[in-house]
Amino acid sequence: MSSQSLLDQLIGALRCLPGVGSKTAQRMAYYLLERDREGGRHLSHIMAEAMERIGRCSCCRTLTELEVCRLCTNPHRDAAQLCVVETPADQTILEQAIDYRGLYFVLGGHLSPLDGIGPREIGLDLLDARLSEGKVKEVILATNPTVEGEATAQYIHDMANARDIRTTRIAQGVPMGGELEYVDGATIAHAFSGRSEF
Amino acid sequence: MSSQSLLDQLIGALRCLPGVGSKTAQRMAYYLLERDREGGRHLSHIMAEAMERIGRCSCCRTLTELEVCRLCTNPHRDAAQLCVVETPADQTILEQAIDYRGLYFVLGGHLSPLDGIGPREIGLDLLDARLSEGKVKEVILATNPTVEGEATAQYIHDMANARDIRTTRIAQGVPMGGELEYVDGATIAHAFSGRSEF
Ligand SMILES: [Zn+2]
Ligand SMILES: [Zn+2]
Repeated sequence: MSSQSLLDQLIGALRCLPGVGSKTAQRMAYYLLERDREGGRHLSHIMAEAMERIGRCSCCRTLTELEVCRLCTNPHRDAAQLCVVETPADQTILEQAIDYRGLYFVLGGHLSPLDGIGPREIGLDLLDARLSEGKVKEVILATNPTVEGEATAQYIHDMANARDIRTTRIAQGVPMGGELEYVDGATIAHAFSGRSEF
Repeated sequence: MSSQSLLDQLIGALRCLPGVGSKTAQRMAYYLLERDREGGRHLSHIMAEAMERIGRCSCCRTLTELEVCRLCTNPHRDAAQLCVVETPADQTILEQAIDYRGLYFVLGGHLSPLDGIGPREIGLDLLDARLSEGKVKEVILATNPTVEGEATAQYIHDMANARDIRTTRIAQGVPMGGELEYVDGATIAHAFSGRSEF
């Protein structure tokens, strides 16, 4: 056992949450202990479950506790369209912003050779296997409009091109250098519908 | 089991934290799952422990996993001074801001008859028993400078007065209507040293 009080341990542990400094962590700890123990118990239980059981969909690599996620197994989605995004958060943003009936592929990042992140690290071998099946007719490249996102899109375009599959890129209605996650839904929707041949 | 995905359940559960809306909860969930599972595991474990094991000190009513907290059992603290605060957060703020060697009593709120919060609900029976022991020579009233905090201070003043114990009130250097928890340390220190007879 630590010599720190359990309260101080809780405050320290809460700081692993993004954007939570010591002052905010303290307020959260007091709030849970004084006003919402049931919420705290529930959160601790769900968090433990989530950390153990959530992995990546074997088909699209998004975060899910299932072997294959619900979206991939949804028979009403159109397997001919495959939208490639960097993160599960980007997938959620797109899914909420647009009326899209195709499927997704979640890279979990972008190519970054200097950080040792090559094609395998972002699942491009799995994507290539998917493209080889012949169902996908259009790859929609929705990686971030950053240097790395563009390079990743270019790499996937070349991959798809080698299999005679059409690729489109979401329009640069999203601000250059920005992150999809922070763009409003209307801009995203506009950029998506204005996508062009890559 | 819920029909919601485990990820959605995690996002929902994170919203029990104060100041955390759906967008922030989503970002926290993705962050833990993609970049800090170990931190998430640790947090879930400490949080479960804290919700079960942290109670109130039987002596001063602050939050602690011990029967009597470390501050109350510290032989170097002066039992002649007893500082009364509304919350454990206020106690922490004072302890960090000033060079105080006395003890504390944590009400866990303030008198609020309309909400059914009377003397017993904020531990004033326990405080009176403490005062009856004869060790306390000065009660320092550090309740919030709000209407309720003033009324609570007045009530405790009358209680102490009946036992011929001196009471002081921290100076109104803290802005009227404000909450101690949001006041900077220098102001708190100034108000504390400038306390006067109640
Ligand atoms: Zn999937
Ligand atoms: Zn205590």
